[in-house]
Amino acid sequence: MRIHRIIDPETGRPAFAKKRDGRFFRVHFDQGLAPIEALHQVAQGRQTLTIGEAIAEEDQAQLLAPVTPSKIICVGLNYRHHAAEMNKDIPPEPLLFMKPPSAIIGPGQPIELPAQSELVHHEGELGIVIGARAKNLHEGESQGVIAGYLCANDVTARDIQRREKRYTRGKGFDTFCPLGPALALADEFVPGDHFLSCQVDGVERQSSRLNDFIFPIDHVVAFISNIMTLLPGDVILTGTPAGVGPLNAGEVVAVEIDGIGRLENPVIQAPAG
Amino acid sequence: MRIHRIIDPETGRPAFAKKRDGRFFRVHFDQGLAPIEALHQVAQGRQTLTIGEAIAEEDQAQLLAPVTPSKIICVGLNYRHHAAEMNKDIPPEPLLFMKPPSAIIGPGQPIELPAQSELVHHEGELGIVIGARAKNLHEGESQGVIAGYLCANDVTARDIQRREKRYTRGKGFDTFCPLGPALALADEFVPGDHFLSCQVDGVERQSSRLNDFIFPIDHVVAFISNIMTLLPGDVILTGTPAGVGPLNAGEVVAVEIDGIGRLENPVIQAPAG
Repeated sequence: MRIHRIIDPETGRPAFAKKRDGRFFRVHFDQGLAPIEALHQVAQGRQTLTIGEAIAEEDQAQLLAPVTPSKIICVGLNYRHHAAEMNKDIPPEPLLFMKPPSAIIGPGQPIELPAQSELVHHEGELGIVIGARAKNLHEGESQGVIAGYLCANDVTARDIQRREKRYTRGKGFDTFCPLGPALALADEFVPGDHFLSCQVDGVERQSSRLNDFIFPIDHVVAFISNIMTLLPGDVILTGTPAGVGPLNAGEVVAVEIDGIGRLENPVIQAPAG
Repeated sequence: MRIHRIIDPETGRPAFAKKRDGRFFRVHFDQGLAPIEALHQVAQGRQTLTIGEAIAEEDQAQLLAPVTPSKIICVGLNYRHHAAEMNKDIPPEPLLFMKPPSAIIGPGQPIELPAQSELVHHEGELGIVIGARAKNLHEGESQGVIAGYLCANDVTARDIQRREKRYTRGKGFDTFCPLGPALALADEFVPGDHFLSCQVDGVERQSSRLNDFIFPIDHVVAFISNIMTLLPGDVILTGTPAGVGPLNAGEVVAVEIDGIGRLENPVIQAPAG
C-alpha cells in the first residue's frame, strides 16, 4: 500500500492520504500513536488502515515529503559500479554520513543550485523509513522496525565534496534531499523485487535492481542502530548506483522506483541571498 | 541571564526554569512563540522574562539539555593549537560535520563508551544556540539570530574517526553530545570575555579563552546559514581547543565556561546491546 502526505486544502495543514480513483482520501489514525508509528503497525499487519473522506483531486493536490525525520543517515558507496566510477575501494563496513532535515523538499519542489558550486550531481536512491524506536538491533530484527520505503535524491555538490573530503557541506544545502512521492509500506513492498531509475529530462542516467547492494538493507539498519538510536520517521538513504551526473538549471530530474512512484523535481539556480 | 531546562517534578515534563536562591522557578512564555524563540526575544532586548512559581529545589532538580535542536552542526579544527596536535593544516574555510540529535544527553547523564571503540576522546566546546530562522546571512547579521550559548562535549571515538576519515560514525554514538548545564542568553554573555576549561576527574586537560577561534562566531554562523537554513533551537559547536584526550569508564568529565556553568558527565561502559 502506498500512502501520500499532502496539504489539506481546507486547513492548509499536512495530512496523510491514500490515492484512489484520481482522488486523495484522508487516512485516519488512532489517538496516541504518531502517524508514522501507526503506519508501521499497518506495515507489520498489526492494524488496518481507516480511510476517510476525499480531501483533494489528484491533479490539484500539493504533495509533501512523506515523512519528517529527526535525522537522515546515508550510506556512501553501496553499489559496486558506483564505487568503481568514483575510483573508490569497496569499504569493509558501511561508511555513513548525514544530511540535515532542512535539506528535505517534496515532489515537484525545485532543487536550487547554490552559487558556491559549479558541479551539482543527482544521486537516485532507495530510502528506508523507520517506524519504531530501534537500538542495538541484530541483523534479523531490522525488518521489524521498517515502516516502508520511498524514492530519494541525494543531491550532491560534487566539487565541494571532492575538495573537502567531508560530506556535510557538499550534501547539506537546502533542497538537496527530495523525498517522495509516496511511502510504500513494507508489508507489500520488498526492495529486491524492484528497480530504480534516475532520469534527467527523460533520459535515463542511472538504473539498477534494488538487490545489488554491497551492504544489504537488513545489515545497514542493524549497523546504524548499533551506533545511534533510530526513531520513528527517521530516513536511511541506501546509496546510489552507477551513473551519477550533473544537473543544470532548467532540467527536470526524476527518481523512479516501480511500486513506489516517480519523484520529479525541476532544477533552478538558487535565488540570490 | 542563565536559563535551565529541568523535569517539572509535578508533571514529569520538561520546563524552562530560572535558578534563584537555591531553587528553580518556572519561566512563563507567551502563547504563539516556541520557548527558544521567546528566549531569543529576551536576548535581543525585545521582551522581558516572566518568572513564576518555584517548582524544584536546586539540589533535587533533574537537569536536561537546554535545547532540542533539529540539527547539530559542528566546526572541525577551529583552534590553531588543536589543528597542530591533530597534524592538520589550517583549513581555508570552516570544515563542517554533524552530530545526530539522538546523541544529546543532559548534565549528569552518563557518557557510554561503545564496545566498537577503544579510544574515546573528550572535546570541550562552546555551543551556539540559534534563536530565529536564518538563511543567507551576511557576517554582520549573525548576532541577531543567536539566542545564547552553552557548554558542549563533542565526544569522539578517535580510532573510528581516524580509520574512516568521515566523522558521522565516530562522533554519532548515543550519549556523545552532552549539552548544558544552562543556556546563557546572548544579551549578557559575550564569548570573547570568557574562558573554557575541560577537566577529567578534576585535572585540567583543555583550556582556552573563547576569542582564539580561527573562524570567529559571526563568520561561522553566516557561513553555515549560506548552506543550510538554521532553525530556532539549532546548535552549532564551535570546535575544540588543544588538549583532547581519552575518557575511561569510572571517570567524570566536566566542560566549564565561566558565565555558563559546569557540564559534568560520568563515563561508563555502554551496556551490552
